[in-house]
Amino acid sequence: MKDASAIVTAADIRTARDRLESVVHRTPLDSSTTLATECDAAGVHLKLENMQRTGSFKIRGAYNKLSQLDTETADNGVVAASAGNHAQGVALAGQLLDVDSTIVVPEITPAVKIEATRGYGAEVIVEGDIYEDSYERALDLTDERGAEFVHPFDDEAIIAGQGTVGFELAEQCPNVDTVLVSIGGGGLISGIATALEAYDPSVRVIGVQPAGAAHAKPSLEADEIHRLDDIDTVAEGIADARLLDRTFAVIRERVDDVVSVSDTDLAAATTLLAERAKTVVEPAGAAPVAALLSGAVDVAGEQVVAVVSGGNVNLTDHAALTRVGLEARGRYATARLLVDGWPTSLGPLTETIADEGAELVELERVERTAADPPNRTPVEVGIAGSSPVHLAGVLDALNEGTNVRVQSSNVEQK
Amino acid sequence: MKDASAIVTAADIRTARDRLESVVHRTPLDSSTTLATECDAAGVHLKLENMQRTGSFKIRGAYNKLSQLDTETADNGVVAASAGNHAQGVALAGQLLDVDSTIVVPEITPAVKIEATRGYGAEVIVEGDIYEDSYERALDLTDERGAEFVHPFDDEAIIAGQGTVGFELAEQCPNVDTVLVSIGGGGLISGIATALEAYDPSVRVIGVQPAGAAHAKPSLEADEIHRLDDIDTVAEGIADARLLDRTFAVIRERVDDVVSVSDTDLAAATTLLAERAKTVVEPAGAAPVAALLSGAVDVAGEQVVAVVSGGNVNLTDHAALTRVGLEARGRYATARLLVDGWPTSLGPLTETIADEGAELVELERVERTAADPPNRTPVEVGIAGSSPVHLAGVLDALNEGTNVRVQSSNVEQK
Repeated sequence: MKDASAIVTAADIRTARDRLESVVHRTPLDSSTTLATECDAAGVHLKLENMQRTGSFKIRGAYNKLSQLDTETADNGVVAASAGNHAQGVALAGQLLDVDSTIVVPEITPAVKIEATRGYGAEVIVEGDIYEDSYERALDLTDERGAEFVHPFDDEAIIAGQGTVGFELAEQCPNVDTVLVSIGGGGLISGIATALEAYDPSVRVIGVQPAGAAHAKPSLEADEIHRLDDIDTVAEGIADARLLDRTFAVIRERVDDVVSVSDTDLAAATTLLAERAKTVVEPAGAAPVAALLSGAVDVAGEQVVAVVSGGNVNLTDHAALTRVGLEARGRYATARLLVDGWPTSLGPLTETIADEGAELVELERVERTAADPPNRTPVEVGIAGSSPVHLAGVLDALNEGTNVRVQSSNVEQK
Repeated sequence: MKDASAIVTAADIRTARDRLESVVHRTPLDSSTTLATECDAAGVHLKLENMQRTGSFKIRGAYNKLSQLDTETADNGVVAASAGNHAQGVALAGQLLDVDSTIVVPEITPAVKIEATRGYGAEVIVEGDIYEDSYERALDLTDERGAEFVHPFDDEAIIAGQGTVGFELAEQCPNVDTVLVSIGGGGLISGIATALEAYDPSVRVIGVQPAGAAHAKPSLEADEIHRLDDIDTVAEGIADARLLDRTFAVIRERVDDVVSVSDTDLAAATTLLAERAKTVVEPAGAAPVAALLSGAVDVAGEQVVAVVSGGNVNLTDHAALTRVGLEARGRYATARLLVDGWPTSLGPLTETIADEGAELVELERVERTAADPPNRTPVEVGIAGSSPVHLAGVLDALNEGTNVRVQSSNVEQK
C-alpha cells in the first residue's frame, strides 16, 4: 500500500478545480438556524451538492478523470458500473468531453435511472443480478474495447475531483471548525479531507456511515480494511462493504473520526432538510445532518459544514421516508380508534382534529377483531401535528369530546 | 389613485437593499437544463426564495417596513393578520429589530404554523372563522394599542422590500430576457417590476396566477380592479380575490402580461422542481415554473428567471401534490387489475413490474363489484415509471405474462 501523502495532494485538487471551473456548479452553502439551535452550534451550513449537475457531487470526479485521458484512450471510450450517481456523473462528463461512455447497470435498476443516464448520452447495458456482476461485466468490456474503466472511488483523479468540494466550502465558510461527510467507498471524504488539511489542519473532518454499512470505524480501529458481510440500510448511495487501499490510507491519515447513524436518524434528517431547508436529499446525502440531529458528534459552539452529497431519490420513496421522519421527530401520530356511531361520528372526529390545529392525513376503516365491542367501529388514523405534546392533546380531545375512544397509539398520553 | 411613478421607485428599492444587506439571504439562482430543454429556452434559472429566511420572500418587505418605524411607533409594536408567510416574515423582522409583533390568525390555522410564528417571538392571537375576520380583529387591535398595522402588500415599504429580489436576480443573471413572478395581492411583482424597469426596461416581467384565483388579467383588460367572488386553487399562498390600488397601478404600468395555470400545472411543476431541482416549493411558489411547463409563455431562445417565491408547505401535502404531478407528467399509472389466483399471483405480478424497471408504489385489494368474475380478485395498483410509453409497456407485460388482466387504467395502451 502506498503512503497516503503520495496518493492525492492538495495540488492535484487545485488543478482539478481549474479543470472544473466552467463545468460544475459552485453549489450553494445554505445556513440553517434550526439545525444550529438543535445541536447547539454557532452555525450549521449545508453544502448542497444535491443541487450539483446530475444531482450529486459525482460529476466532479468523473469530469476530472475523463478530461485527463490521452487522445487514444479517449477514442476508445470509458466504461463504468453503477446503478446510481456515478453512472450519471460519468455519462455527463463523457457528453461534455465528447468521450463515449458505457455504463453497466444491474437488472433491477429502475427505468427512471436508466433513462436519466441515457439522457446524458451514455450507452447503458443492463446486465447482472447484483452490482458485483455488473462490475465484472464492465471490467470485461473495458478489456474487449481497450477502453478506460472509471472506478467510483479507487482512483486518484476521481478523489481529486471530489476534493474540490473541500476548497469550495472553505471559501464559503472560512472560519469552519468541523466538516461532516458521508462515507461509502470513501472517495468524497478522502478528497475533502485532503483539501481541508491544506486549507487549515485544525479543521475537524468527520465521516458518517449508516449503522447498517459501518465499515470505516472498524477499519480504523483494527488498522486494516474491514469488510462487511451483510449490508442493511436505506442509504443505498453509501451501502458499500468496505474501503479500498487508496481511500483507507487517506482516511486513516486525514479524517479525525467516523460515526454512525441509524436509518431512523436518516429519516428524521431527510424530514428536517425538506421542512426547514426546503431541499430534497437522498438518504445517503442526509447522513451528516443525521449525525448532528442524533448527537453523534459534539459541535457545541462550532461553525459546522454538513456536506449534502446528493438528491437522487424517487419522490415516492422520499415521501415515504419523510413520513417516517415526521414520526421519528414526534410529529406524526398513528392511532387505532373505536368509533361509536359510524359514519355520523366522522364529522365531530374531523372537526376536533382541525380545531386542535392538527392535520388528519390518513383515515381508514379497518377489520374488526374479536376483542372489539360489536357496537363500535375500528378506525386507523394518521395525524400530523407540531410536537408530541400537541399530538397527545389531540388524542385527549378525541377521547373527551367525541364518540371516539383511542384504543392504541404511538403517542404517550397523560 | 396615485400615479404609479409616485408610488414605489427604484431608489426606494436600492435603499431597502442597504437595510436588508446583512439580514436576509442572497438566495441562490439555480440553473435547470431540464427546464430549458422543456420550454426551448436558452436558459432557465430559478431564484430560490423558498431558501430565504422564514421560507419565503416575505421577510424582505417586513424588515424594510419595520426598520423605518419611528421610535414611538416601534414601542407600540406592530400587528398583522396572516395564516401564512407574511406572519413569519413580520415575526422574524420584529425579533431582529426588537419590535413587539402580534399576529392574528384564523382559527383553522395549523399548529405547526402558529408555533413557527411564535418561534420567531411573535404573540399569536387565534381569532376569526375566515381570514377577513382575523384581518378586522387585527385592525381593531392596531387602534387599541396605537400600534402599526403591517399590510401584506398594500404598503410602499413592503413593496420596496420585495423589490430587492429584482436587483438581486439581475446581478445573478445580467442578460435576463424574461422574469416570471406569481401574483396574489401583487406586492412581489410590483417590487420586482419596478427594479427591473430601472435595470433594463426591455426585460419582460410576466405575472402568473392560478386559474382559480386569476383576477389580475381581467383587471388589466377592464382597466379597473376586478374582484373575484369565488376562489378555488391549491395555491393558498396566492389565493387572493383582487389587487389593491397600489399594486394595480404598478402592475398596469410595469408588468408586460399576466397568464394563468391550472392546479394540475402547479402539481406538475412542484414535481419537476422536487425531482430535478431538488427543491421543496409550496404550490404558489411553483406557479412561474408551471407557466413554463404548460407553455403559457413563449420563451424560445431566451434567458428566463422564474421566481420561486416560497417553500412553506406541509410535507404530507407536498407528497400528495407531487404524486398528482407524477401522474400529470405521465409518470404514474393507476390501474384496476383482475387477479387470477390470489395471493399466489402476487409473486409474478410484483416480479414483472420490477423486471420492467418500474416501481410498485401502492397495491390494495379492493371490493368486488357485481361485474367482476367470481373467480378473479380485484386489485388496485399505483405504479411509478419513466414515461407513458414505459408505463404502457409495464401494463402490457402484466396482461401478457402473468395471471393478471388490466381492467382499467389511466394509461393509453396499445
